[in-house]
Amino acid sequence: MSRCVTYGAACSLDGFIARSDGAVDWLHFSEDAREIMRDYWSGIDAVLMGRKTWEVAAASGSGGGSGGGIKGYVFSRTLEAGSVRGAELVSSDAPGFVRRMKEADGGDICLLGGGELASSLFAAGVVDEVGLNVHPVLLGSGIPLFLDPGRQTDLELISCRQIDGGCVMLRYRVRRD
Amino acid sequence: MSRCVTYGAACSLDGFIARSDGAVDWLHFSEDAREIMRDYWSGIDAVLMGRKTWEVAAASGSGGGSGGGIKGYVFSRTLEAGSVRGAELVSSDAPGFVRRMKEADGGDICLLGGGELASSLFAAGVVDEVGLNVHPVLLGSGIPLFLDPGRQTDLELISCRQIDGGCVMLRYRVRRD
Repeated sequence: MSRCVTYGAACSLDGFIARSDGAVDWLHFSEDAREIMRDYWSGIDAVLMGRKTWEVAAASGSGGGSGGGIKGYVFSRTLEAGSVRGAELVSSDAPGFVRRMKEADGGDICLLGGGELASSLFAAGVVDEVGLNVHPVLLGSGIPLFLDPGRQTDLELISCRQIDGGCVMLRYRVRRD
Repeated sequence: MSRCVTYGAACSLDGFIARSDGAVDWLHFSEDAREIMRDYWSGIDAVLMGRKTWEVAAASGSGGGSGGGIKGYVFSRTLEAGSVRGAELVSSDAPGFVRRMKEADGGDICLLGGGELASSLFAAGVVDEVGLNVHPVLLGSGIPLFLDPGRQTDLELISCRQIDGGCVMLRYRVRRD
């Protein structure tokens, strides 16, 4: 069985993962959400992110996504080798790289938003699950959760659960049929 | 107590109510959904729609949204008086018109998507509830459920329920605090 790639994010009901300036002050933190994230992260040993997400993670001092037995991979055509300290830079063929990762041994793989890297991986059909923590707010504008990958992706609902703060946890499996 | 204005739609997980050409072949019809719609429509006596939604409704032969004790209102600056048979044309100040409707006697009011009329009513703060039937599909592109009204709208989750076909019914109340 190959490693599962999950696209996971907290988002607004109108599909944004952050305000236009990157702010996530509207996120609701709760013991519910922490418990779900603990369970989820316990099976993960790799994190995939695009350049913009990496820059946010690096600026926040979270070690660029690596740490605690989790390895970070930053996908960028413009960053220079050596510039993503603590993570591995992947500068071409993101879908092929992820396909090879999935065939190698290891735990599950978390794909972080924004949508540009995710979009290329949805287009290539290498994403296996989608997990969203939908917050009860319409932001109006911001950084989109989904960009158009140029194809439809059919999903199968795994679970739907109301958690603290009026948030809804939705989990889907990508259909291959 | 004033009449409740609900923005209701079936949508994809990535926030579209139809494909770019208007097609809704991806919608899942079930006894579950029919029962929920029957309950919902039993309290409704007015339907609000923009010109594009009206044109789709009129072309489908559904009487332009009126019928069965439900009155249709079409909001458009470009349509000519007399062109919306079976419905009432509202050619200016949509928010003011809806505010006056809410103060008059009557049943609840259904606001149909697309997003342009909805956006102006969210901007004006006259929408009271949001009800979505989220389908398990990422369409990639299409007619958006939400356009940017230029302001944030805070919501309160009323209910979250999985129904047939992996669809999720989400109901929210607009917060006024």
